[in-house]
Amino acid sequence: MQMADLLNRKKAGLALTASEIEYFVAGFTAGSIPDYQASALLMAICLRGMTDEEAAILTDCMARSGDMLDLSAVDGVTADKHSTGGVGDKTTLIVAPLCAAAGLKIAKMSGRGLGHTGGTVDKLESIPGFRVTLSNEAFFEQVNRVGVSVIGQTGNLAPADKKIYALRDATQTVDSIALIAASIMSKKLAAGARNLVLDVKCGSGAFMQTQEDAQHLARLMVEIGKRCGRRVTAVITDMDTPLGTHIGNALEVTEALEILQNRGDKDLRVLCLALSAQLLKSGLGLSDDKAMQKAEQILKSGAAYKKFLEMVEAQGGDAELLRRNPDFLHAKCSRTVPAPRDGYIVHMQTRVVGESAQLLGAGRAKKDDAIDYAAGLVLHKKTGNLCRAGEPLVTLYAADAARLDEGEARFLSALEFGDVPPQKKPLILGKVE
Amino acid sequence: MQMADLLNRKKAGLALTASEIEYFVAGFTAGSIPDYQASALLMAICLRGMTDEEAAILTDCMARSGDMLDLSAVDGVTADKHSTGGVGDKTTLIVAPLCAAAGLKIAKMSGRGLGHTGGTVDKLESIPGFRVTLSNEAFFEQVNRVGVSVIGQTGNLAPADKKIYALRDATQTVDSIALIAASIMSKKLAAGARNLVLDVKCGSGAFMQTQEDAQHLARLMVEIGKRCGRRVTAVITDMDTPLGTHIGNALEVTEALEILQNRGDKDLRVLCLALSAQLLKSGLGLSDDKAMQKAEQILKSGAAYKKFLEMVEAQGGDAELLRRNPDFLHAKCSRTVPAPRDGYIVHMQTRVVGESAQLLGAGRAKKDDAIDYAAGLVLHKKTGNLCRAGEPLVTLYAADAARLDEGEARFLSALEFGDVPPQKKPLILGKVE
Repeated sequence: MQMADLLNRKKAGLALTASEIEYFVAGFTAGSIPDYQASALLMAICLRGMTDEEAAILTDCMARSGDMLDLSAVDGVTADKHSTGGVGDKTTLIVAPLCAAAGLKIAKMSGRGLGHTGGTVDKLESIPGFRVTLSNEAFFEQVNRVGVSVIGQTGNLAPADKKIYALRDATQTVDSIALIAASIMSKKLAAGARNLVLDVKCGSGAFMQTQEDAQHLARLMVEIGKRCGRRVTAVITDMDTPLGTHIGNALEVTEALEILQNRGDKDLRVLCLALSAQLLKSGLGLSDDKAMQKAEQILKSGAAYKKFLEMVEAQGGDAELLRRNPDFLHAKCSRTVPAPRDGYIVHMQTRVVGESAQLLGAGRAKKDDAIDYAAGLVLHKKTGNLCRAGEPLVTLYAADAARLDEGEARFLSALEFGDVPPQKKPLILGKVE
Repeated sequence: MQMADLLNRKKAGLALTASEIEYFVAGFTAGSIPDYQASALLMAICLRGMTDEEAAILTDCMARSGDMLDLSAVDGVTADKHSTGGVGDKTTLIVAPLCAAAGLKIAKMSGRGLGHTGGTVDKLESIPGFRVTLSNEAFFEQVNRVGVSVIGQTGNLAPADKKIYALRDATQTVDSIALIAASIMSKKLAAGARNLVLDVKCGSGAFMQTQEDAQHLARLMVEIGKRCGRRVTAVITDMDTPLGTHIGNALEVTEALEILQNRGDKDLRVLCLALSAQLLKSGLGLSDDKAMQKAEQILKSGAAYKKFLEMVEAQGGDAELLRRNPDFLHAKCSRTVPAPRDGYIVHMQTRVVGESAQLLGAGRAKKDDAIDYAAGLVLHKKTGNLCRAGEPLVTLYAADAARLDEGEARFLSALEFGDVPPQKKPLILGKVE
């Protein structure tokens, strides 16, 4: 087999065979296929597309390119969730303990934040003492005992994805739905859970800008999951406004604690219940109604809250501090910014709000940058709200006044005011099962 | 400017700007743009195409990437020809001296053969003593004095083309009409002549398989030439059968001498006259009829023959030998192959006939392989001819019997016999001006 055959077939719009895809993934990962041939093929895939079958085979080959986490040491039904990334997305902190309290086993690996989006591992690390690195044995033991553990990525998961992604990033071949789906799903397959719920976001703060693209991506990832023997469902959600009100690492833990205690932002609560219900449905075989009832009951009862603190404690975090003071970490400086005019917020560029949090110190520009766990912002008004000039709009948290200035300017540039309220958009735009 | 911008524009099917194309050609030639970005762009160009304007700018940038031959030292109207490559194509050996005898100045650089196609430089080198390497001064002096010189490529002509072509070859991005046109025309622009005739071949022995593709390529190259200030015309010719009857280096010189002496294959004569007339028309401003009359008159008068021998002599070749014995070089072994059956030759796979000549020793598999100037074949029957079983079909020439065996088997595999004559195809399929 030669790359020439693959290039010619894909150029002509034909599907690659399983052995061709295996040849490409193995050869490129091993270095026997040069970057310039791989990038030409990736461009041809971008422009000619891939069938569902091709995408599933690609995903499977990428997953198998490194370690495949063996969850057989975990007793019970394993479940995982993935979000395509947003601003203020702290759903894992709520969904994971909720589903564990319902009896699922959540052995979850999460990522760190980069650019305008945050990462669950950073959020958890804002809790004093919390360890995100566990040995496989300790990880499995905790999942069996507590029902849930969330750690950073370990081992050599899907190295083909890392290498292919780096090349896509350098050659503008990121925006192929098939390649995006294969990238996400390869890591999830390698992470081993049998049940998976995907939160596919669209809008100004998301990777998928349109609902149509999000729908395509969700459909393909669910299809790939099925073809690879996993039960996968997806929820398509609006990221045209940040999720909840708190953005920043410790701030998002605080907001998660509010939801877990039956307070806080209604949209965030609704989305967490929807994601949890999807997992309970596929993992426990419940109907839609029963799954939602169970999710609501567990949240209301405080069982999810209890499970979260149990997880924190198991991973060395100061659960007692969180119990005593959900608002546990304070930034050196803060500033409440007043509304600059009367009017409705008709649009927030969510990505720019995320950039504002990054400038305040909550995020990283480069992979190895340090972050300030206490930095971030709390929204007092969101899209659709009426503001009076001078009313509190947002409170910013940072280590110094210069960062507050930067963050404020960026935040204000994200807002659009108007005299009539914008049309209310639903948060949950659809489901794919 | 960044490659990301170019990649995104071309992916979206948009035209690149002049400064973007300049940035790409300069950066890739200098090595600041990596292969993997260049190959992704070339694939996007293959699949999205280029406008005529983009192709002309690309050609111009590639031409200017190295030396631009300055023909101002040549007195008179400079002219050049180019063939897209075929089997048995010895037209340069006839057209160049013919046009020089008509008063044009032919300062021509030619290539060597590779694979199933031959090269003019190899053919000339089969003449004892002929030098294909001249200093620029000697080259210009000869063109001024004799009117014609044909040498090998010198200097650093269009290095961007060399580098881009190597990458296209490795990434299956050769078959873009825009990239093919830019590759050919960049070298012709750098070679300096003001008038150019292109012989664009199509059919089983040619790079362009269909007449439609050949027409597109011809039209684009003529358009690029015009946009870059040259007078360019093209003749589209059939390469579904070898050109003339002789294939192999010295054998083709022999056949060229026949045509120059008003004997030999009618088709070859017709094509040489057509190409010459195109050059006389654009170079001397003659009408179609006057140009053809002049070309015929010069060929008939023996002036073209005389000019060819003058060129041979000027470049150190043994013109006296050619005059005395046009069949000047003999292979060690030869074999006349009889027709295997009664019937018409309904098709010859021209590329396979070229491969047969290569196996006999006339061509190279790799760039640095040695060739046997005496090797090759002479066709006694061509497509459309009726054969009786046992009649001479072809005579093969090689250094040993093993090569004759190989060449014979390959040659016979190229032929298709039938009981009814095939439809006669014209040799000249069209012109683009």
